[in-house]
Amino acid sequence: MTQTIIDIVELLKKYDLISGENISSQLHISRTAIWKHIQQLKKKGYHITAKPNRGYHLLKTPDTITTEEIKQVIKTKHFASSIHHLPIVSSTNDYAKTLAKKGEPEGSLIIADKQTGGRGRKQRKWISPEKGLWFSLILRPKLTPNDAMLTTMCAACAVTKAISELTTLKPRIKWPNDILINGKKVCGILTELSAEIDEITYLIIGIGLNVNNKIPNELKEKSTTLKQEIKKQVDSVLLLSSILSSFEYFYQELNNGNILKIKDTWRSYSSTIGSKVTVSTEKEVVTGVAVNLGEHGELIVKTNLGEKKILTGDISYL
Amino acid sequence: MTQTIIDIVELLKKYDLISGENISSQLHISRTAIWKHIQQLKKKGYHITAKPNRGYHLLKTPDTITTEEIKQVIKTKHFASSIHHLPIVSSTNDYAKTLAKKGEPEGSLIIADKQTGGRGRKQRKWISPEKGLWFSLILRPKLTPNDAMLTTMCAACAVTKAISELTTLKPRIKWPNDILINGKKVCGILTELSAEIDEITYLIIGIGLNVNNKIPNELKEKSTTLKQEIKKQVDSVLLLSSILSSFEYFYQELNNGNILKIKDTWRSYSSTIGSKVTVSTEKEVVTGVAVNLGEHGELIVKTNLGEKKILTGDISYL
Repeated sequence: MTQTIIDIVELLKKYDLISGENISSQLHISRTAIWKHIQQLKKKGYHITAKPNRGYHLLKTPDTITTEEIKQVIKTKHFASSIHHLPIVSSTNDYAKTLAKKGEPEGSLIIADKQTGGRGRKQRKWISPEKGLWFSLILRPKLTPNDAMLTTMCAACAVTKAISELTTLKPRIKWPNDILINGKKVCGILTELSAEIDEITYLIIGIGLNVNNKIPNELKEKSTTLKQEIKKQVDSVLLLSSILSSFEYFYQELNNGNILKIKDTWRSYSSTIGSKVTVSTEKEVVTGVAVNLGEHGELIVKTNLGEKKILTGDISYL
Repeated sequence: MTQTIIDIVELLKKYDLISGENISSQLHISRTAIWKHIQQLKKKGYHITAKPNRGYHLLKTPDTITTEEIKQVIKTKHFASSIHHLPIVSSTNDYAKTLAKKGEPEGSLIIADKQTGGRGRKQRKWISPEKGLWFSLILRPKLTPNDAMLTTMCAACAVTKAISELTTLKPRIKWPNDILINGKKVCGILTELSAEIDEITYLIIGIGLNVNNKIPNELKEKSTTLKQEIKKQVDSVLLLSSILSSFEYFYQELNNGNILKIKDTWRSYSSTIGSKVTVSTEKEVVTGVAVNLGEHGELIVKTNLGEKKILTGDISYL
């Protein structure tokens, strides 16, 4: 889209109803030009009604996000300075890895309308049809692999903050990498990294967020979408923009060494600390009270036999 | 090479001088067939003399290792069950990564006669001309990224043990990833990994060992080769085989959870623990006495201000 079209979309979003004359005077273009741009927008999936003598009304934005829409609303400094928007991809994390290996800079955003091979932790399937937010960010933090979990925590804080600000919902982080609403999973974060012993070469944060998408019946007991929870459509682009802004902020804090701040924010958004839990790891099943986070984001569980520090696992709340 | 040729090489190595008749009776092949095989071996770079009425004598094996030679002497169960031998490659670690990504199984060996872009830690150049040992192993340990350093320690123990057993030299491990002989660097280990937060997807151990190769004059103050130290040629294939056998053993111990054993062996081969050191890391320079290894292989340095746990860095002995 040209800047003029982006400006028209902005005005349509700002006003419930706006006259061609008003658009014309604000953007200094002829009413014929406006009419032509409106036709183009309709072709792109924008539902716009034109009421004679009253003006234009934006009924609905396209189902899928466009790069131009993202660029229009995004307020970050570095994150998403480069955007790779794909109609369909196996996995945004895999695509991001390929780019990262070729030297793609920090902050590049890879976003897809749908994923055919979306993954969660441990190669678990993540269903990613159209109308959800499926995206990955390439990061190159000056951290050791031990501290990679802290970037997952920044991402979780960002998603939780953005949902809290844009809706009336109260999402809660479930350690290590899920976000729940009313006890159901709405978002998963997959962090993957390439590293030497002491140095991360690149790190990919993949975020899968159920927004306006459908979820299969068999998952409905444990999963939900934002649309389902608030009973109306959510503006995916605004949500994405808000997540990226917060993520960039928390990531900056992490790079500045303010790890306590990240952990404090995480704790304030989490349902895990203070809960009675059972944690299943590769090696064992631990039952106790989740009492705190360890130095690198591990979960510290107080059991009958003392405190256990768990790097990662699957939690059940008791 | 066919199995017959491999058997002939084995006999030539076993006996200083062996008659065609003896070979013929041991391998059940005609003397004409033997003669033909000997001609083939000569073409492959084996220097073999034939003394009339006395027999064959192996003067010299080829300068570069062949896959067949490796297969002939190797005694491992899983390591090197698949061998990728390359006359020239940019970096065996990079080649290994590409294979690992495509699902290459654990234990595969990638070995090159020379590397054009050999690397050490932090993208430092590693000169790798012909006649050295430049190889990588693909591993898939059931470890978290935090514990990756323990596999580097297994590799360092294996190289040190193999050199100690095959020569009269006393190599010493210098934390975190070098092996020194008489204070000069003879071997470097580069560990690279692809991981999720809690799980290593694959890990590449790259070993660069100066054996019979030349080293540039400007490096001679700080580096050495095995040949230079013992003043004679070293059998690279035997050395490789011995390294792989020990490495497989230590790696098995690691997978069985015998971390203490790995650390004890490492300490017994190391010159670092007990030494006064200066450690330069990304963040700081720490001076003190290296007193121990931490849980994940970190170096614990006792300074005037207390103990410091260092994940990795560059050591100078004081």
